[in-house]
Amino acid sequence: MDEIGVGMLGYAFMGKAHSNAFKKIAYMTWPPPLVPRLVGISGRNTEAVGEAATRYGYEYATTDWRELVADDRIGLFDNGGPNSLHAEPTIAAAEAGKHVVCEKPLGRDAGESYEIWRRVEATGVKHLCAFNYRFVPASRLARELIEAGELGEIRHFRGRYLQDWGDDPSLDTWRFSADDAGSGALGDLGAHVVDLARFLVGEIASVSGFAKTFLAGRAVDDAVEAAVEFESGAVGTIEATRFALGRRNAFQWEVNGSKGSLAFDMERLNELQVFRADGDRARGFKTVLVSEADHPFWEHWWPPGHIIGWGDTFVHELHHMLRAIATDGDVAPYGATFEDGYRAAEICDAIVRSGESGSRVALSYRTL
Amino acid sequence: MDEIGVGMLGYAFMGKAHSNAFKKIAYMTWPPPLVPRLVGISGRNTEAVGEAATRYGYEYATTDWRELVADDRIGLFDNGGPNSLHAEPTIAAAEAGKHVVCEKPLGRDAGESYEIWRRVEATGVKHLCAFNYRFVPASRLARELIEAGELGEIRHFRGRYLQDWGDDPSLDTWRFSADDAGSGALGDLGAHVVDLARFLVGEIASVSGFAKTFLAGRAVDDAVEAAVEFESGAVGTIEATRFALGRRNAFQWEVNGSKGSLAFDMERLNELQVFRADGDRARGFKTVLVSEADHPFWEHWWPPGHIIGWGDTFVHELHHMLRAIATDGDVAPYGATFEDGYRAAEICDAIVRSGESGSRVALSYRTL
Amino acid sequence: MDEIGVGMLGYAFMGKAHSNAFKKIAYMTWPPPLVPRLVGISGRNTEAVGEAATRYGYEYATTDWRELVADDRIGLFDNGGPNSLHAEPTIAAAEAGKHVVCEKPLGRDAGESYEIWRRVEATGVKHLCAFNYRFVPASRLARELIEAGELGEIRHFRGRYLQDWGDDPSLDTWRFSADDAGSGALGDLGAHVVDLARFLVGEIASVSGFAKTFLAGRAVDDAVEAAVEFESGAVGTIEATRFALGRRNAFQWEVNGSKGSLAFDMERLNELQVFRADGDRARGFKTVLVSEADHPFWEHWWPPGHIIGWGDTFVHELHHMLRAIATDGDVAPYGATFEDGYRAAEICDAIVRSGESGSRVALSYRTL
Amino acid sequence: MDEIGVGMLGYAFMGKAHSNAFKKIAYMTWPPPLVPRLVGISGRNTEAVGEAATRYGYEYATTDWRELVADDRIGLFDNGGPNSLHAEPTIAAAEAGKHVVCEKPLGRDAGESYEIWRRVEATGVKHLCAFNYRFVPASRLARELIEAGELGEIRHFRGRYLQDWGDDPSLDTWRFSADDAGSGALGDLGAHVVDLARFLVGEIASVSGFAKTFLAGRAVDDAVEAAVEFESGAVGTIEATRFALGRRNAFQWEVNGSKGSLAFDMERLNELQVFRADGDRARGFKTVLVSEADHPFWEHWWPPGHIIGWGDTFVHELHHMLRAIATDGDVAPYGATFEDGYRAAEICDAIVRSGESGSRVALSYRTL
Repeated sequence: MDEIGVGMLGYAFMGKAHSNAFKKIAYMTWPPPLVPRLVGISGRNTEAVGEAATRYGYEYATTDWRELVADDRIGLFDNGGPNSLHAEPTIAAAEAGKHVVCEKPLGRDAGESYEIWRRVEATGVKHLCAFNYRFVPASRLARELIEAGELGEIRHFRGRYLQDWGDDPSLDTWRFSADDAGSGALGDLGAHVVDLARFLVGEIASVSGFAKTFLAGRAVDDAVEAAVEFESGAVGTIEATRFALGRRNAFQWEVNGSKGSLAFDMERLNELQVFRADGDRARGFKTVLVSEADHPFWEHWWPPGHIIGWGDTFVHELHHMLRAIATDGDVAPYGATFEDGYRAAEICDAIVRSGESGSRVALSYRTL
Repeated sequence: MDEIGVGMLGYAFMGKAHSNAFKKIAYMTWPPPLVPRLVGISGRNTEAVGEAATRYGYEYATTDWRELVADDRIGLFDNGGPNSLHAEPTIAAAEAGKHVVCEKPLGRDAGESYEIWRRVEATGVKHLCAFNYRFVPASRLARELIEAGELGEIRHFRGRYLQDWGDDPSLDTWRFSADDAGSGALGDLGAHVVDLARFLVGEIASVSGFAKTFLAGRAVDDAVEAAVEFESGAVGTIEATRFALGRRNAFQWEVNGSKGSLAFDMERLNELQVFRADGDRARGFKTVLVSEADHPFWEHWWPPGHIIGWGDTFVHELHHMLRAIATDGDVAPYGATFEDGYRAAEICDAIVRSGESGSRVALSYRTL
Repeated sequence: MDEIGVGMLGYAFMGKAHSNAFKKIAYMTWPPPLVPRLVGISGRNTEAVGEAATRYGYEYATTDWRELVADDRIGLFDNGGPNSLHAEPTIAAAEAGKHVVCEKPLGRDAGESYEIWRRVEATGVKHLCAFNYRFVPASRLARELIEAGELGEIRHFRGRYLQDWGDDPSLDTWRFSADDAGSGALGDLGAHVVDLARFLVGEIASVSGFAKTFLAGRAVDDAVEAAVEFESGAVGTIEATRFALGRRNAFQWEVNGSKGSLAFDMERLNELQVFRADGDRARGFKTVLVSEADHPFWEHWWPPGHIIGWGDTFVHELHHMLRAIATDGDVAPYGATFEDGYRAAEICDAIVRSGESGSRVALSYRTL
Repeated sequence: MDEIGVGMLGYAFMGKAHSNAFKKIAYMTWPPPLVPRLVGISGRNTEAVGEAATRYGYEYATTDWRELVADDRIGLFDNGGPNSLHAEPTIAAAEAGKHVVCEKPLGRDAGESYEIWRRVEATGVKHLCAFNYRFVPASRLARELIEAGELGEIRHFRGRYLQDWGDDPSLDTWRFSADDAGSGALGDLGAHVVDLARFLVGEIASVSGFAKTFLAGRAVDDAVEAAVEFESGAVGTIEATRFALGRRNAFQWEVNGSKGSLAFDMERLNELQVFRADGDRARGFKTVLVSEADHPFWEHWWPPGHIIGWGDTFVHELHHMLRAIATDGDVAPYGATFEDGYRAAEICDAIVRSGESGSRVALSYRTL
């Protein structure tokens, strides 16, 4: 089996999640499309990044991501750093001929995201914006059911990503820095909702809404609210907040079509609610435990009903990327490309602009 | 026990619901504040209204509501007719000195609603706009918990009323007539969401959204979507639709505060989800079966866990109205007055105007 | 419409539930098979039974049930008294030519139950043992699905009736008196489980289990536990307890067949969980909101999704009895006859005997 | 960090689950108590075991488990083979001075289980019977709450392990062989229920029940049903089946005490239902998402609400074993020792004997 050298930027939350995934791909997805070789990891804190290298088995640690970019053994550059560190290293890695994965949001705003996409696309490498929730088995099953026409014409999407850790003025993280993060709940959570909306229902045509900051002195938004219309004519709502007490990781969405409906909650990520208007007397939403042999990604796992975890979505995502690299195949449409990352950013920006102007914003997307 | 004569306008859905409630009040709420005497019922179809009188025990039937207005034995006029029949009979009844109940939406738009309120308020009678979902035990418990400060400062309200019977071009009902109904999902379902939002969180300051009609040729809206801000600074979404397949009567709402959260679904109307940030290691949303001796309205019913039905909410509502009449007490704040009916209409209209203009609409409310 | 005179024994819990049902039948089930005329009510406390007569509209109250038995205007005698008052009045009423309804358990043990059945059956009147949970729409739908073969061959029944009010030594009610009640959780709750098991799966062949009393000095059982085998070869468990904290009225059962499964919880009595092994990729239990126009009993009620309450099951049950009387039709199999009441008692007794002897008890049922 | 050499018997289901766990322990539990070095793996099929060695990174493969026993580099022998291969290799490994993990059921019956325990205990090595469901965070949290007295005196345990893959006469696996497996649903699923019952509630005093085989010609049981009494006086039911259509991995249990209750379903393994009788007006079962920083095992994982999978329970289990080895600490009580494996077997056998004799079986446990 062929190897691919991996260079990782970031050793904290996403560094752990991605490193775990690369390690599991080597034996859980069998045979793997490429065997990830963990070459180098970079981060700002010398001691911490050194420990991370030991922990996850990277051959070396560095505080300078340029070292990874310059390393010829590295074929895949994975950027799990803060948002402010997405653009320059990702572009540099791509221009050095490495395939690139970048955590979402792609850039801190639509302009930066567009620039990343444009520069990287020009190099011809594969690029994936790590909207890992496309790789939840239930999300993929939902997409497949919709593609197969089982929902008919889509009427509604309502999505909300609810967390509750933001209501603490003493918290100090780069996620509350406008410069490091670009935005708050919007880019962190709202971007996931926007991406899933596009993944399941298609392009968004317009948004009416606003961003909201609850805590005085906080530099980024705490929540966003929007009423949206899709190009298809479907309508709905998009919401993200860090102020929904009791909701820990509740990315909830529902899609209603002319033939059926789907509903989901990330806190029960192994389940998809499926309704079909099939005339059955015993009608209702099915709780589908998405863990059957004929369900997406399940060939890698366990017998039915033996559920997987949040961390395993990264196994699916990075396996998808490795297969695209190995086969020179497409990252899209099941994986989000940098174009998807850019488009999500356009929509996020539009919600902010709608709030500032008080007007509905019609979306237009730049092309290359 | 004193009696009160009831005159009922409408014998169909709401006629059945209200008549059932008046009959049950007489023995389920014991002793009743006033014993309802079902004097007369009016409707357009002679045969049907006659049968309704027999069925529910009204002393007579008439096709002319003016007969009820002129009947001195009637002390309470209950208007369960189509929206276009709300204004004139309700005002006439009040001006004839009868207390009045009027189904929601109060009028077909804010202007008509204001006029009903203004004219009726001037007569000095008691008036109740039949937002019966204030009288779900879980709704009242929610209100009491919020009033007691258990949720702290409210950050979010998200409410949606989802039904699925609208996606049928062959349906023919007054509810699809712009003249009879005034609006579609907006006044039928959205008004309930707006009223509960005000009941639980307070006044709405602005809305950004729109109404949507899916079916060509349909004269009223099929769905509404809005991002809203409350005067308190809380933010959220309001949605109503008749196009959410599989959702039969899913009026779902959630409130997040700085100390806790509440969530509800009308399809499980006996349950309230309650989260408190109390530091308990075993934290999470409680499924409270609102059926205990110390829960709202439960003194009328059964042992704990022996749940009530949707129809029983009208028992609570009309019992509340009868008590207000008997004691010369307040309908507000637990019951919706015609002012509440008017304010809901202002907000509904604002959503439509926001959609037409593409701009956020700041609410302002008329006073008397 | 023809009337039937009703004589009611008992004015407390069951008196309220049955009286409410008779009153609602008159207009909610339209046209009713017979219009109940509430003639007389009897009870031990003069003042309380008098107030009950006023409250529910009985023409008179009496402390002597024999007065009801002697009253020619009464065609239906409804016994909602304590278990020790089931046999004599019910038999006397039947022998006076009145149709009879008797609350469960029919007698305090199998012998007494058999005697009630034998004596009443001999009179030729209609008799119904008030296992009202057969009249939950979800129970009836379950029965219909099973009868239609949709579950295939039944493999398992597991039923438990969990309540939690028993763990209080200070409680004083006839339900804790061996003489008044005959048994504790067994006859009160276990009998319901046994009846539903028979209703859905068929006759029980043997039981292995025991009754348990937790509180020292309590004269009746607090819980029963049994492993059971049906004549069909299906196997499962039956349990009843008043000591399951947090379970207020949780009569939960599940049936597994070779083609599908059903599951239910009385605390969500409007819902039936339905699984079918139909090869659908999106497989799982459906949450069926049993409230559609084509669902059992729903012709009496509201639009879909507008749920009913526990009290409404008695409307269905007594409507069924009135129709049987009006049409000289069968009470069985959808309603439980006194034979069903007797058979449930045989099974309940067998659980007790199994516990006493330490041996599995094979059931045999007496016939007339 | 010190290493420990691992020898694995079995490369299929449990081989995959345990190998994955050893690999994740090395970096997810940081720092690990011992770093697992995957030395050798054995299995009957040369090609398959060779591929497994490559896949999981074992240094060699062998078709003779004695090679592992003889390998001095191996300090921990992990037996994930069929039940008939539990006794001899496990005893041999222990007698060769290796710590041992053995999958459940420990032996094919109580006699064999006792012999394994006796022989292994005599060697002084650490031994763990792989009842991995003790290592679900919700199970451990349940145990901690019970140990802290939060449930008061335990009244009830009801546990059932429901799967649905057994109803297929064409299936051919060692699990249906009496010689290879010893029993069917009993040892495969029932043993888990029995172990959790002991883990949470304590020793079982007596069982009344039976095993059942539905399919003609099947050599092992398809289901078991039992009513049980604990030494403490608590009572309940134990059930296991492979014939519950729609239940894929539904190990469901509930515990009721005098102060509260707990409930669980393995299909939602990240959730624990917690009820406390604390006098709160808003009372009910909490859905606790067991994924907080102060929850068991969570120091290894992700932010709150980012759930783990079934496979991760083995990480906890084997980490526990490695820590016991590294610190010369206790496997019990949080891990099941071979004595626990033996006791579970006694109870399983007792259910079978109860079915055969028709009598309740009082448990007695052998000691060393």
